[in-house]
Amino acid sequence: MSSKYKLLKEECYEANMQLNALNLVVYTFGNVSAVDRENGVFAIKPSGVAYEVLKPEDIVIVDFDNNIIEGAMRPSSDTKTHAYLYKNWAEIGGIAHTHATYSVAWAQSQLDIPIFGTTHADHLTADIPCAPPMRDDLIEGNYEHNTGIQILECFKDKQLSYKEVEMILIGNHGPFAWGKNAAKAVYNSKVLEVVAEMAYLTRQINPNAPRLKDSLIKKHYERKHGANSYYGQ
Amino acid sequence: MSSKYKLLKEECYEANMQLNALNLVVYTFGNVSAVDRENGVFAIKPSGVAYEVLKPEDIVIVDFDNNIIEGAMRPSSDTKTHAYLYKNWAEIGGIAHTHATYSVAWAQSQLDIPIFGTTHADHLTADIPCAPPMRDDLIEGNYEHNTGIQILECFKDKQLSYKEVEMILIGNHGPFAWGKNAAKAVYNSKVLEVVAEMAYLTRQINPNAPRLKDSLIKKHYERKHGANSYYGQ
Amino acid sequence: MSSKYKLLKEECYEANMQLNALNLVVYTFGNVSAVDRENGVFAIKPSGVAYEVLKPEDIVIVDFDNNIIEGAMRPSSDTKTHAYLYKNWAEIGGIAHTHATYSVAWAQSQLDIPIFGTTHADHLTADIPCAPPMRDDLIEGNYEHNTGIQILECFKDKQLSYKEVEMILIGNHGPFAWGKNAAKAVYNSKVLEVVAEMAYLTRQINPNAPRLKDSLIKKHYERKHGANSYYGQ
Amino acid sequence: MSSKYKLLKEECYEANMQLNALNLVVYTFGNVSAVDRENGVFAIKPSGVAYEVLKPEDIVIVDFDNNIIEGAMRPSSDTKTHAYLYKNWAEIGGIAHTHATYSVAWAQSQLDIPIFGTTHADHLTADIPCAPPMRDDLIEGNYEHNTGIQILECFKDKQLSYKEVEMILIGNHGPFAWGKNAAKAVYNSKVLEVVAEMAYLTRQINPNAPRLKDSLIKKHYERKHGANSYYGQ
Repeated sequence: MSSKYKLLKEECYEANMQLNALNLVVYTFGNVSAVDRENGVFAIKPSGVAYEVLKPEDIVIVDFDNNIIEGAMRPSSDTKTHAYLYKNWAEIGGIAHTHATYSVAWAQSQLDIPIFGTTHADHLTADIPCAPPMRDDLIEGNYEHNTGIQILECFKDKQLSYKEVEMILIGNHGPFAWGKNAAKAVYNSKVLEVVAEMAYLTRQINPNAPRLKDSLIKKHYERKHGANSYYGQ
Repeated sequence: MSSKYKLLKEECYEANMQLNALNLVVYTFGNVSAVDRENGVFAIKPSGVAYEVLKPEDIVIVDFDNNIIEGAMRPSSDTKTHAYLYKNWAEIGGIAHTHATYSVAWAQSQLDIPIFGTTHADHLTADIPCAPPMRDDLIEGNYEHNTGIQILECFKDKQLSYKEVEMILIGNHGPFAWGKNAAKAVYNSKVLEVVAEMAYLTRQINPNAPRLKDSLIKKHYERKHGANSYYGQ
Repeated sequence: MSSKYKLLKEECYEANMQLNALNLVVYTFGNVSAVDRENGVFAIKPSGVAYEVLKPEDIVIVDFDNNIIEGAMRPSSDTKTHAYLYKNWAEIGGIAHTHATYSVAWAQSQLDIPIFGTTHADHLTADIPCAPPMRDDLIEGNYEHNTGIQILECFKDKQLSYKEVEMILIGNHGPFAWGKNAAKAVYNSKVLEVVAEMAYLTRQINPNAPRLKDSLIKKHYERKHGANSYYGQ
Repeated sequence: MSSKYKLLKEECYEANMQLNALNLVVYTFGNVSAVDRENGVFAIKPSGVAYEVLKPEDIVIVDFDNNIIEGAMRPSSDTKTHAYLYKNWAEIGGIAHTHATYSVAWAQSQLDIPIFGTTHADHLTADIPCAPPMRDDLIEGNYEHNTGIQILECFKDKQLSYKEVEMILIGNHGPFAWGKNAAKAVYNSKVLEVVAEMAYLTRQINPNAPRLKDSLIKKHYERKHGANSYYGQ
């Protein structure tokens, strides 16, 4: 196989396998994509294929208007959501969607995840947003495309930037996360799940636990992401 | 061993081992069966045999009146429940019973599992039914046979179809799940356990979390199961 | 090494390793013993030795008056409790003590574990007893010996038989379980932990969940343990 | 590489890998250091390096004033906290910091972990202290250095000895633990996580669960740590 998208498919394949290795999915309840901005396409997991049998060459190449460019299989049923986000958010390189347990539980609760500590603040300074359940007129239309609309509307309503907040919960559904590439999108999915579990436990222990105070939010975020960041190599 | 049921036993064996691999059982707290409609028999796990030592040839062949057709061991103590379901529900091919943790917890709570999100709606559009504890007159009779009666009565009372709702909780006991074959019955047992955990967490986070709205229930189910389904290959 | 207790030590060693394999202990927070009634001795884990380095020949042989009969190492700090139980309960062959998570949580809650379902009833017909915290006069005395006294007092107060109820929680401490041999004691420790988790979840889901009704308790227990039992081979 | 700190780096490396093996960290959310008192330096994990690729020679050697003595990589972003503790607490040999789930949940709850049972009392006789969130004037200054100050202030306020209480929660952040060497610091981090989970469950089961009574606290601690201790070899 001498596809020009060989590397892109491999990036996408590895990221999907990570989803499984990190216990973020059971069966086929998740998918990751990786974009190639130059060619205006992205690679995405085929629909309903088990991780145990998935191979790099099964990955499907799709453009931002949902045309299949390369691949013998049907792409993930969530493909249109990915396409919509790539089309509208020019600086993301990968997207991951899961049904991870604690992330879904918060999504089903229809509540934002409050920022309770520095594990959260090391990654984003806002509560993790939970989009309200989709409006009926959107459900009856082009559902997965409209999930993309739902995500952008939520970010607009809450005045969030997709470059700073790289994750969202869709009410009654589950999480989407993104980042500079597919691996980072998976990383953000895992961070979201860890933070979701910690926030759940925090409220069980102390229903009146306060949000992290602003001075600490700012400090921890700048430590990792500010102009003078000093985390990592 | 040149049994005419060799393939059936192997299907049954593999499904039982999956139960273990998916963390749905400890020790021998579970069993799966696979039916052969043509010959009017089913294969089922022998009673009380540990998964570490279970072999395909240990699987017992039983008919729908609970006569042992082939096998040196005593079949699962729940055999009569399986037989009753196969006899009455002509289109199921496999049945699984477990004592998986979250499924049992809901069964012990004697509550239906509310449909809170799309993970649930991707598989069924109803709350997962919990049959009330068995009536005393049934307990004193043919207990496992009567568990079958209890399941059918619950489906009748709640006006459910076994083709659409492939799982149930028996109050104070635990889950049964079924499907077109043994592997699908195990799959449904895992889905039930995952959905049970998510619903538990949802209510802990938000005791007032609403059921999924009808428009979304319908959409997600049709995406996978409707005439125009577009999930999978 | 040609010890006459070679087989006894191996039984004890295997049971201790099972404790670890079943996720019932971290570090050295647990111990199992196996009795040799003919010689009036039992084999027990040495104190504070990690499972990764434990060897069969490290197991210590002790008599019912806590004299070391064979072995170069100091026996478990809980040895006197084991000795007291073997001395007073003539028909047990093995004892296991753990700090398994859910068992300890109930012990710290100082509550009996209510019988909520058939997973519990398949093993015992009573609530799992939780002994009240030790009286101060007993604590100041021979502590581990007195833990044995505490266990027998609790069984007397609650009118329980050690042959029917093979497990107990010590208030503020943790579980002890026993059985016909060391492997059965470990099995009962795992059953207790599973039942403890299910009961915890049940009460979280439904704080008013009723105890299993008497007719079902009786039925399930007799299925496995009655004169006409029909579970297992 | 013939560094004079070769053994120190290996001790530090092994302890960091243990953190991962004991499920106390995801990704790079933790770090362990090991001190060399004679040379007035300590070895610490480099910042942001994944456990899968970490090698003993990557470990960085730092003195108590945060000067890098040896190593090509940037040390952990928490290095100044480690340095401050080593400088002020003359008798500790290792420090571990994690974002372990239950420990963080209590830290985010801003509550001390009550001593509910003997698992806790076997290790320390006090509630596990939770330092209040850092004062704003400290946050704006030298943050990680000031985390050290925050820890010492909390121990002074609560009149605790670092030799008896080898662990703390930093409000809104997470746990630090220490001990005679790096392995013991990791051990204490695991004990803290186990005790944190048990205490969480205890309060869920019985919100009125009482603290362990003083006589039992004293007894269990002396069993392991008193002049006449009789635990271990």
